[in-house]
Amino acid sequence: MTQRIIDILSSPQDLQHLSNDELEIVACEIREEIVSVTAKTGGHVASSLGAVEIIVALHSLFNSPTDRIVFDVGHQAYAHKILTGRLQEFDTLRTYGGISGFTKPEESPHDVHPSGHASDSLSVALGLAKARDLRGSDENIVAVIGDAALAGGMAFEALNHIGHEQSRMIIVLNDNEMSISRNVGALMRHFGYMRASDQYRQTRDSLQEMLTRRGRVGKQLVSLGRNVRGSMKQLVIPRTMIFEQLGIMCTAPIDGHNIAALREIFEKVMHTDGPILVHVVTRKGTGYEHAERSPEVFHGVGPYDIATGAVIKQAAKAPTYTKVFSDALMAEAAADQDIVAITAAMKDGTGLAGFAEAHPDRFVDVGIAEGHAVGMAAGLALGGKKPVVAIYSTFMQRAVDQLIIDNALSDLPVVFCLDRAGLVGDDGPTHHGVFDLVYARMIPNMRVIAPSNEAELVHALHTALVKPGPFVVRYPRGEATGVALPEVPEVLKTGKGKVVRKGKDVALLAFGRMVAPAREAAELLGEQGIGARVVDMRWVKPLDREAIRATAGMKLVATVEEGVVNGGAGQGVLEEMARLGIQVPTVVLGIPDRFVSQGSMEVLLAELGLDGKGIAEAVKKRL
Amino acid sequence: MTQRIIDILSSPQDLQHLSNDELEIVACEIREEIVSVTAKTGGHVASSLGAVEIIVALHSLFNSPTDRIVFDVGHQAYAHKILTGRLQEFDTLRTYGGISGFTKPEESPHDVHPSGHASDSLSVALGLAKARDLRGSDENIVAVIGDAALAGGMAFEALNHIGHEQSRMIIVLNDNEMSISRNVGALMRHFGYMRASDQYRQTRDSLQEMLTRRGRVGKQLVSLGRNVRGSMKQLVIPRTMIFEQLGIMCTAPIDGHNIAALREIFEKVMHTDGPILVHVVTRKGTGYEHAERSPEVFHGVGPYDIATGAVIKQAAKAPTYTKVFSDALMAEAAADQDIVAITAAMKDGTGLAGFAEAHPDRFVDVGIAEGHAVGMAAGLALGGKKPVVAIYSTFMQRAVDQLIIDNALSDLPVVFCLDRAGLVGDDGPTHHGVFDLVYARMIPNMRVIAPSNEAELVHALHTALVKPGPFVVRYPRGEATGVALPEVPEVLKTGKGKVVRKGKDVALLAFGRMVAPAREAAELLGEQGIGARVVDMRWVKPLDREAIRATAGMKLVATVEEGVVNGGAGQGVLEEMARLGIQVPTVVLGIPDRFVSQGSMEVLLAELGLDGKGIAEAVKKRL
Repeated sequence: MTQRIIDILSSPQDLQHLSNDELEIVACEIREEIVSVTAKTGGHVASSLGAVEIIVALHSLFNSPTDRIVFDVGHQAYAHKILTGRLQEFDTLRTYGGISGFTKPEESPHDVHPSGHASDSLSVALGLAKARDLRGSDENIVAVIGDAALAGGMAFEALNHIGHEQSRMIIVLNDNEMSISRNVGALMRHFGYMRASDQYRQTRDSLQEMLTRRGRVGKQLVSLGRNVRGSMKQLVIPRTMIFEQLGIMCTAPIDGHNIAALREIFEKVMHTDGPILVHVVTRKGTGYEHAERSPEVFHGVGPYDIATGAVIKQAAKAPTYTKVFSDALMAEAAADQDIVAITAAMKDGTGLAGFAEAHPDRFVDVGIAEGHAVGMAAGLALGGKKPVVAIYSTFMQRAVDQLIIDNALSDLPVVFCLDRAGLVGDDGPTHHGVFDLVYARMIPNMRVIAPSNEAELVHALHTALVKPGPFVVRYPRGEATGVALPEVPEVLKTGKGKVVRKGKDVALLAFGRMVAPAREAAELLGEQGIGARVVDMRWVKPLDREAIRATAGMKLVATVEEGVVNGGAGQGVLEEMARLGIQVPTVVLGIPDRFVSQGSMEVLLAELGLDGKGIAEAVKKRL
Repeated sequence: MTQRIIDILSSPQDLQHLSNDELEIVACEIREEIVSVTAKTGGHVASSLGAVEIIVALHSLFNSPTDRIVFDVGHQAYAHKILTGRLQEFDTLRTYGGISGFTKPEESPHDVHPSGHASDSLSVALGLAKARDLRGSDENIVAVIGDAALAGGMAFEALNHIGHEQSRMIIVLNDNEMSISRNVGALMRHFGYMRASDQYRQTRDSLQEMLTRRGRVGKQLVSLGRNVRGSMKQLVIPRTMIFEQLGIMCTAPIDGHNIAALREIFEKVMHTDGPILVHVVTRKGTGYEHAERSPEVFHGVGPYDIATGAVIKQAAKAPTYTKVFSDALMAEAAADQDIVAITAAMKDGTGLAGFAEAHPDRFVDVGIAEGHAVGMAAGLALGGKKPVVAIYSTFMQRAVDQLIIDNALSDLPVVFCLDRAGLVGDDGPTHHGVFDLVYARMIPNMRVIAPSNEAELVHALHTALVKPGPFVVRYPRGEATGVALPEVPEVLKTGKGKVVRKGKDVALLAFGRMVAPAREAAELLGEQGIGARVVDMRWVKPLDREAIRATAGMKLVATVEEGVVNGGAGQGVLEEMARLGIQVPTVVLGIPDRFVSQGSMEVLLAELGLDGKGIAEAVKKRL
């Protein structure tokens, strides 16, 4: 293999000595690297391919890490990782002990903050700018943020403040307008106005032309060659922009795949006072035709075949929890016209695409705006509807207050379906949904169910829909267990679990997905003559008092949950035991008081002692 | 006393039969009522006086509760309460069992949702509008929101979505531009542009004239008489407004104290398709000269003398915790130039006014934008500063995700000072800070201190500033205990509490303000021959293992905290006991699993069994 330019770069500053043509080659090499690695590891392909030229241009001009480049949702930042000393390890992307799929300060001083939750980059960047101004130094602060993330409330709060403070900083708006997945919200339409300008059309036309001209060379590997040189070289400030009205200067839209044009504009804005927004138009998946054509598939994708773009499916033994939720909700919605489904920019991820098609009037996608989603659900419930809010567990952290004040305080009948609850594997610490049991169970009036398999999920959803008051139903990412699905969903009895294995020595009180390893542990213990009862607790709130009472006289109780131990279900069980006066030694198993890394579920569960073997060992140690 | 119009109104619809002049009289009567009641009970006087005409005009045209009027931060809604059947009980405002200071659905069907946390009204209103449209009915949905609340991220998320959905709804922007307390943020400057219009100037001039002409008649009671009739009667849509660019029509600014003008515009917009924002300019405190002159004092005020406007101070035995924090931070900041203080629209409430004056460059007020405040703190810390973020406990619920992802995940040295932690008294369930111990202790890397008195607060702040990593320091509202303050603050040993009373039978492990009633309980128990040890645990995280270990062999352990029991410190103690193999009967005291009403601290603590007597009884019951 001939040596590539990216192999001989020793730091991003080396890019400063390259010509624009050489930088184009660097961009191509990065694309090849991203595609060849993610074809094996999976990853956020489309976003990362879309941001290659932006990142090459930034690193060819700014002195990271002295200059600070803050990536919003760092899954666009693979090129940044490759250019900042992580090329050698890049093939460990998203694996246990390997390179993170998001920016991660422990990995490199070039990663400013652990990105993962959208819309936070502007706040972090403003903090850095303020710190710089107080110190009196003069480094540049750059935030790179996508159009969807800009609609999040936190980003607006920051924009509003940035316009007020007038600190010198550069906001690179990575506008994926050409992507298939349309962002929702009026802000996006506002971008539409901006796009109606002649300059924008010119940019887009040349982009389209280039993409057509380039043809489909990417059959084997990603396409080379970059032919377009945009003509828009001046800094043009449109008149009627929201940003400008907030006090933030804006450039005219610029071709985000044209390194020369990007460098020219970045050089200009480096010397601008105050905040300036550089409006960059990109296309998700650029340079790899399959990702260009199906950016939604290649948003977050598993391993795939480079030539065909076909995702390499693992032979599935069972549907995903998401799919089961999706089908169950469709069945419920057919029977109950009052059900309205709400998602926050995760229509596909949460399994609501089918619902959106079948019931467009009863489907709401608010964009990346969890707080509003939960607040709007309250309004729908006050208006007599039955809202079902499907949000990933980790992102619901953005709406804890709205759960409390807008919903639970009025005891409203809203069902919060937390997908990706528990450990999520490859995406790592920013995406593990390990806090939901705590923030849900602290809230008065909130009922919390953690189904242990897909049949239980169907029952749980039904239960949450027919019973009064707010419910949290939380279920894991990925493949379910393969049990048969019920013909007719049951209404679960409140606060009543289910003994799934009998035993007299030890009680394993397990929540959600942890029921399966608890059963394995029980079998292992059984082999050693220890009789372990396993209870599928089902309800995290209210807890099953009878199941807890029935532990009286046993040798040991172990609670097992896929969530942080501090404030979790196990500690709740302990209090119930104390209230009932049951004095049985108890061990609380779950996520300890540290952030959990990325890795496969098997590896993570083993590391945390939450697989069957680990649970059995923990029990034996205490017997 | 002659009968007032408001005494004979049987429903808000009765207002529809009154002339504008009669409605002016109604407004005056309402003002008198608000002032005469709040002079005794205290309350949110300035906001409520500013919104009287808006509310009278709305109720004279809309059919509440069929039409839904959603108040953002319901403390502006006293007039609404008076007009919707609560005049007789209005003198119980903010007392135990009395009328809430915020909208509260249990009180009246006219109260749509329990307001209290800013910026949520638009989300709730959009949900109601969507439910209406699905149902096919045609009631009006009106949201009344202040300019400061509009800068909150949740409100922007909603605006963005409202502009997209184009549901028919009316947003009344209650723009307090004339108030002394200036809102921060570029959005406010944008309002400034709007205000630069001729129409606006005209409105303001006539308002000013009126206020001057009226003179100072309010010496005894509030002024009567409303003389101004605004001349702006058309619906004018300015061109360059943010709202319009988001797809929301706007009216020109209108005099918010002119009932005729308000009614005229409301009548027009009732029949508009899609969303429309009615820009209403008001003055806080209108009609009561002392509140007009000092709207900040009369924002949330205790009992006061009507004639002089002098706040009736209770003889204070000790400074407030806020004041102690304020002074301690000033001392720390004098010694450490890296300290930066951040608040979210609560400069006075959190005691940062002095800091802002002394160190304007090191003070940041982000407005009502807790998520951004916490995110920006991360940026400041990454830039080498030591941010101190002072936010009320209840409002920090808006930034739980930012605590986790932006700060704790990177183990950043940021100090979160949660004022008004625990029960807050009169403001009731939306304002009690009873969840912070749970959401703080679930977060890895987070250290949590709950000082038991003002001297401990000084130590805690110092400790949090000198030790690495993120800290939560939470302290109560109101008067501290009166202990002497330290000359030099100490660095507290991590996870080390303090035995404050010896005893061998029972251990009371108390957190924060609960140490005092625990000591009282110990004395009561002592009188009955029960020796109670009292430990000021100081640290909620990490817990004091030695103190817990030392309970071995005792007859009973009681944990006492001013926060919800579910997920709280006491459940953490139980797990630590289980880990240490200590089997002592334990009772966990704190806030049970329900929302706590408003009322004086004494009444609430007694009701919850968290006074000395209640704690002693709980202990005896279990012995």
